[in-house]
Amino acid sequence: MLKREEYYRLFEEYLKTHPTQGEPISLYQPIQYIMGLGGKRFRPTLLLLCGDVFGQLTELHLKMALSVEVFHNFTLVHDDIMDRASLRRGAETVHEKFGVNSAILSGDLMLIQSTQLMLEACREQGGVNDVMDLFLQVGKEVCEGQENDMLFETADGIKLDSYIGMVQQKTAVLIAFSMYAGARASGLSIGPAKALYEFGIQAGIAFQVWDDYLDVFGTAAIGKVSGGDIYNKKETHLILRLKEQMNSADREVFDEYWSGAISEDDFTGIFALLKKYRIQELTVAATQERMDHAEERLLSYFDRDQVLPLLSFTGQFIDRKF
Amino acid sequence: MLKREEYYRLFEEYLKTHPTQGEPISLYQPIQYIMGLGGKRFRPTLLLLCGDVFGQLTELHLKMALSVEVFHNFTLVHDDIMDRASLRRGAETVHEKFGVNSAILSGDLMLIQSTQLMLEACREQGGVNDVMDLFLQVGKEVCEGQENDMLFETADGIKLDSYIGMVQQKTAVLIAFSMYAGARASGLSIGPAKALYEFGIQAGIAFQVWDDYLDVFGTAAIGKVSGGDIYNKKETHLILRLKEQMNSADREVFDEYWSGAISEDDFTGIFALLKKYRIQELTVAATQERMDHAEERLLSYFDRDQVLPLLSFTGQFIDRKF
Repeated sequence: MLKREEYYRLFEEYLKTHPTQGEPISLYQPIQYIMGLGGKRFRPTLLLLCGDVFGQLTELHLKMALSVEVFHNFTLVHDDIMDRASLRRGAETVHEKFGVNSAILSGDLMLIQSTQLMLEACREQGGVNDVMDLFLQVGKEVCEGQENDMLFETADGIKLDSYIGMVQQKTAVLIAFSMYAGARASGLSIGPAKALYEFGIQAGIAFQVWDDYLDVFGTAAIGKVSGGDIYNKKETHLILRLKEQMNSADREVFDEYWSGAISEDDFTGIFALLKKYRIQELTVAATQERMDHAEERLLSYFDRDQVLPLLSFTGQFIDRKF
Repeated sequence: MLKREEYYRLFEEYLKTHPTQGEPISLYQPIQYIMGLGGKRFRPTLLLLCGDVFGQLTELHLKMALSVEVFHNFTLVHDDIMDRASLRRGAETVHEKFGVNSAILSGDLMLIQSTQLMLEACREQGGVNDVMDLFLQVGKEVCEGQENDMLFETADGIKLDSYIGMVQQKTAVLIAFSMYAGARASGLSIGPAKALYEFGIQAGIAFQVWDDYLDVFGTAAIGKVSGGDIYNKKETHLILRLKEQMNSADREVFDEYWSGAISEDDFTGIFALLKKYRIQELTVAATQERMDHAEERLLSYFDRDQVLPLLSFTGQFIDRKF
């Protein structure tokens, strides 16, 4: 077993030696740009980790990891257009730098490339049809998740369950697929790989829920308020949970804060409500419970010792410090 | 062998019984909308025709035809955003009707769906890897062609050969692929199928070149000037050929017409130059020559009798009356 940083480095090395090239250059530059912006390489790392946990790591895993990362970056490029985002990983988004047309078209090309890579890898693996099918199915769900995310922005009365469902589609399925593909490329049979996928779904949801959590509590705790989600009036998990918990008097107060632009005072008031209703603790508990259930199911297939590297990796999602 | 209209009807029937459905509805509505706008169903018809010419038509062909048509419509949806087009087949474009975000995302989903359909069909056919590989390769080329098309809009000194190369990528490869896939699904072996693909490339180029031609001469000939390409100062095949043929005095006159917005007088002047340099005849001759060469190569593999339905279908590209 390697360390997390070593999987990262393996992937970066592979990425460097397998650059995306072609003509016209203007179509390929945006791809090189976004792939070069870095990021945590979270999905490739997880894919390689699972490859290692369930068998022997080979170049097949690296090819699949590249496919997944290219796919993920395709979604970032198109989502950033839709969300009118100007920054990504601290740098200009693709459509800001190269224009919307290039961002649309380069994104399309990345989707095709990622499919090519996954198909090649599956074929080299002796035709693992289930991996290829799941890849495309996951691709569709990611689109559905993005559409739901956009719909939720203007919808009233979103339920917490619907939000979790959206997170599952938009974020968790690709994380779960990364685990599934890594394990299948190591020869794990379909049954246990499906259990791993289910575990990955819960881990992926925890990952996103924790991201929402840190946006409000993580940085506030270290003295620097970010709270971008609240200032942008994004109805994350935390706000939806709060809405479910509040009595009607507090709900009126909250609605006052939440109407119009969010001032610093509004933020402080909302933060106080989150504290009052112990949303912090409830979120940790709910996330932990999901993960525990998923872990239990996983351990009905595998020894804890075997999957320990995976458990300690995903365990960080609820206790991330960054 | 069926008639052209019968292949069209077969496809429409299949499309009706295999609608694209899913949730959220707002993501799938644009897909149903664009697929329902109709059109000539040119690629599906060609795929079914080739399936019939080279063997027995089955449901596999219909699935492949649907894949190709969904892919083609994905490109229309995204291209229309890039080209800021407001009309498609006489109706609102997807981004006009549903917004740019929906058009981007629904297009992405269509690309994934078309890939799923083609993968399924190839697998049912017993794993015709070459068809799947070519499908994805063609997908990349179509993106490259669209990028080149956009680059050409603002570039100076485009050569006729480069324009033809762009047409090959943007239009001809998918037409050629439709022929290839139809024939392969009927069991034609790879060698002759490749010759068919090459024929398809030339036929596809002829198809587009003829489209450019009709825009200027076709409608003018029947008394109604369209000439949208010229009014939009689109440097099609005709203009590029004219530029290659003109003497320097005429070139100066042309440049005068071509600078700024095109008035009716400019149009008349350009039309006169196209006549003077016999661009009409040269285009017909050049297109005919390409088709003749391609036909010759095709006939080194097949009896004329066998491929006659295909030849008479593609023969219309140079002599279309609509």
